[in-house]
Amino acid sequence: MNLDDLIFVSVDDHAIEPPNAFTPHMAAKYKGREPRIVERSGRDVWVFEETASGYMGLNSVVGRPKEEYGMEPLGYAHMRRGTWDVGARVEDMNANGVLGSMCFPTFPGFAGQRLQHYADRGVSLAAIRAYNDWHLHDWCNAAMGRFIPLMIVPWWDAQAAADEVERMAKQGVRALSFSDNPTVHGYPSIHNGHWDPVWKACADNDVVICCHIGTGGNAGHASDESPIDAWIATMPISIANSAADWIWAPMWKKYPNLRMVLSEGGIGWIPYLMERADFTHRHHSAWTMSSFGGQRPSDVFKKHIMTCFIEDEFGLKNLDSINVDNVAWECDYPHSDCTWPKSPEVFWQQASNQKLSDAAIDKITHLNAMRNFGYDPFTRFGRENCTVGALREKAKHVKTEPQLGMGGAAPKRDPNKPVTSGDINRMFASADAAATL
Amino acid sequence: MNLDDLIFVSVDDHAIEPPNAFTPHMAAKYKGREPRIVERSGRDVWVFEETASGYMGLNSVVGRPKEEYGMEPLGYAHMRRGTWDVGARVEDMNANGVLGSMCFPTFPGFAGQRLQHYADRGVSLAAIRAYNDWHLHDWCNAAMGRFIPLMIVPWWDAQAAADEVERMAKQGVRALSFSDNPTVHGYPSIHNGHWDPVWKACADNDVVICCHIGTGGNAGHASDESPIDAWIATMPISIANSAADWIWAPMWKKYPNLRMVLSEGGIGWIPYLMERADFTHRHHSAWTMSSFGGQRPSDVFKKHIMTCFIEDEFGLKNLDSINVDNVAWECDYPHSDCTWPKSPEVFWQQASNQKLSDAAIDKITHLNAMRNFGYDPFTRFGRENCTVGALREKAKHVKTEPQLGMGGAAPKRDPNKPVTSGDINRMFASADAAATL
Repeated sequence: MNLDDLIFVSVDDHAIEPPNAFTPHMAAKYKGREPRIVERSGRDVWVFEETASGYMGLNSVVGRPKEEYGMEPLGYAHMRRGTWDVGARVEDMNANGVLGSMCFPTFPGFAGQRLQHYADRGVSLAAIRAYNDWHLHDWCNAAMGRFIPLMIVPWWDAQAAADEVERMAKQGVRALSFSDNPTVHGYPSIHNGHWDPVWKACADNDVVICCHIGTGGNAGHASDESPIDAWIATMPISIANSAADWIWAPMWKKYPNLRMVLSEGGIGWIPYLMERADFTHRHHSAWTMSSFGGQRPSDVFKKHIMTCFIEDEFGLKNLDSINVDNVAWECDYPHSDCTWPKSPEVFWQQASNQKLSDAAIDKITHLNAMRNFGYDPFTRFGRENCTVGALREKAKHVKTEPQLGMGGAAPKRDPNKPVTSGDINRMFASADAAATL
Repeated sequence: MNLDDLIFVSVDDHAIEPPNAFTPHMAAKYKGREPRIVERSGRDVWVFEETASGYMGLNSVVGRPKEEYGMEPLGYAHMRRGTWDVGARVEDMNANGVLGSMCFPTFPGFAGQRLQHYADRGVSLAAIRAYNDWHLHDWCNAAMGRFIPLMIVPWWDAQAAADEVERMAKQGVRALSFSDNPTVHGYPSIHNGHWDPVWKACADNDVVICCHIGTGGNAGHASDESPIDAWIATMPISIANSAADWIWAPMWKKYPNLRMVLSEGGIGWIPYLMERADFTHRHHSAWTMSSFGGQRPSDVFKKHIMTCFIEDEFGLKNLDSINVDNVAWECDYPHSDCTWPKSPEVFWQQASNQKLSDAAIDKITHLNAMRNFGYDPFTRFGRENCTVGALREKAKHVKTEPQLGMGGAAPKRDPNKPVTSGDINRMFASADAAATL
C-alpha cells in the first residue's frame, strides 16, 4: 500500500453554521425566533432568544499561517470558506484526501449543550430540530456520500429526545452527539434513569453516542498564568475522567449493542486506563459492590467504547493493547489541531514508523468508522474513487497554501510573553461582552 | 535474578501521625497550641487552632479484608499498627520485602496544604517545623537507613519556605512535598515569581519536589451518582493536567538541575502525554510564543520529571518510550491501592510478563530512587541484606493475614447498591460534622 491508496474517513470534524442555517427549517410556529447572525462591533454574532454568543468561529483557524492561529475567529471573514460552505468543505476534503467526515455543531455547542437552557422549551426544541434538519439536508446531503450525519437532542425531556433520535434515525442518521458528563450542565448523570429512553432509542436504531471533549468534564486551566499550550496539551486526555464514568455506567448491561465514541480523546492513554480500571475493580469491588457480571472493565471498554486520534504514534505502537476494531482516525478540520492539508502524510509517516499492517491501516482509516456508523461510500462511488490519490486528483485547483491576514482580529503577540490561559479567558469574556452590547 | 533478589525502595507511602507527634517538637513560644488528637463521638480527631479535621486515617485500610475497605478509618483502633507506629511499620516493610520508604504526611495533607490557612502565621509555621522535626527524627531516624525523609514548607512566605528547605536539607532531607497546583488552595501559580526562593533552595540543596496526586488538581467526581470506582480509577491520571502545567513552567530554564516527581501518578499514560506535548508545541508555539530554547517539551519531561507506579504493566511494556532512569516503584502503604504484603509478587509477575532486563528492574525498583534522593542503604546495611529474601527472613513472625473487624466503623454495604461518589462525600461531610460538635 502507498500513501495514495489510503482511504480516510474522519469521525471528528466541525461545521461552522452559515448565517441562515436555521431559517428554512424552523417550525412554522416559531418562525422569526430561530437563532440568527447579527453584526455587532464588527463581529458576526449568533443571537437566540435575545441572548448573544460572543464568538462563533471557536478556533477555526484552518488555512491560516500558524502565526495567525488563535481561539477567535469572530466572523465569517476570519475563516476559510470551507469552514462554513459545504461546497468549499468538500473541496478541502478532496485536497486533503479525505473521503468522509462527521461534523460536530459549533454555535449549539459540540453536543447541543447551549440549546438546553432557554426558558421556552418549545422554541428550544424547534431550534434543535431545525439544526438537525439543516445538518442532514443542507450540509450532509448537499454532497451525498461524503458525510456521516449526526444529531443533537433536547436534554430536559428524555422522551422528546428519544423521539428525535427515532425521527432522525429514520432518515439515516446513526450518530448522536451527547455530553460526556451532563451534570456539568445541570442535567442528571449518565447513571440516572432519566436517560433510559435515549439509550433505548439509540440501541433500537443502532445509533452511536458520540461524546466530544469539551462537552462535559472539560480540561481545566491550571491557572490564569499557565501558558495556554499546557491546556491545549491536556484537552484530549481530560476526557479520561468521563471515560471511567461511562465504563461503570449502567446502560451497557441493559443495551448490550449500544456503543459510544470518545471523540477527540486520543488513543495512547487508553491501554493505561483500561489496566487501571481492571486494577480498581480487582482491588475495590469487594467493598464498592460494583459488578461487571464476571467481566472486566476493560472488556466493557473494548466492546462498547470507540476511540479516535489525530496524531498518536504511541497509540499506534500499542494497537495490540487497545481493540483495533474500535479505533478510528479523525481530522478535526477546521480546528487548530488539524493537520490539513497534509493529514495523509502525517498518518502515513506514523503508520510506517510503526510498521502497521495494511489490514490495521484500513480498519483505522475507514473500515471501523464505516461499520460503526453504517456508512457505505464504496457502493456509491466505487472504492477506487475513494482513495487519497483519486480525491486529490480532483482537487488540483484548490489553493492550500496558508492565507495571510485572516487572523486580523487576533491580538498582536509579544514574543517575550507567552499567551496564557488568562489571556484566552479574557479574550472570550470580552468577545461575549462586545456581543452583548 | 529471582523474586527474592529484588530490592524495593518505595517513593510513595504514607505515615499516619501518632497522637503526640507534634508535642515534643513545637517551639517553646507555641507549646500547648500544637495540633493534637481528641476523642469526639468515638472518633480520633485532629484539632489545631480550634479547628477539627473529621477523619484522620484517610483510606488507611492496609491489612483489612477487602470487604472492609473504606475511605474512613476514623480512629487509631481502625487501622493496622504499622500505619502510625514506626516500629510496626518497619516490620510490615520487612514482611513485604521493602527496604526503603518515603512517607507523605496525612493530617497536614500530603503536601502540608491544610496548614496553610490559619490566621496566625506564627503558630502555623511552628506546626510545619514541628511536623518536619517529628517526621525526620521520630519517624525516619527511628529506623536509620529505612526511610527517605521529606519535608513540607509554608506557602505564604517563600523566603521562610526556602529557609525551611535549607534547615531540613542540612539535616539530610532531600525531598519537598509540594502541591501540584497551589492555585487550587488560593496560592500563586507555579509560573509566578513568588516561588522563586523555593525553587532556588531546592536546586541549591539538591532537593526534589514531590507532587502527590490529590494536592492540587484533584480527580473530579463525575457525579454524585457515579460509582466510586470510577473516581478511584482516574485518581492517578488526573495529575496529567498539572504535569502539562509543570512542563511549560519556568523553573527548569532557571535551575537546570531541579527535579520533580509526579507521586502516585502512574506511568502508562506518560508517553502519550509527552507526544501530545510535543505535538502541541509543534502546532501552536508560533502563536502562543512559548519556547523551550530549541528543545521539545518531552526533553524537559524526561530530564526533570520522575514518575512512579504501584502496578502498571502497560507502562513497563513501554519503558523505551519513557526515560527508564526516571521511573520508580511505589508501594502506597497503607492506602487501599497498595499491594501489601504481596508487592514483590505483583511486580515480579508484571516484570516477567514484559521480560524486563535485570538492569531495568534494578533501576526501577531502587537505583533511580536512591540516586534521585541521595539515599544509600547499601553502605549502611550491605546490599545482600537489602533484598526481599533477606528482609522477609527477618519478618517471619509478622502476621500478614487480613484482620477482621478493623473496619467496624465502615457502613454496612448493600450488595445491590454500588457505593457512589455521593456516598463517600456524605461520609466525609458527616465525619467533619461529628468532629466539630
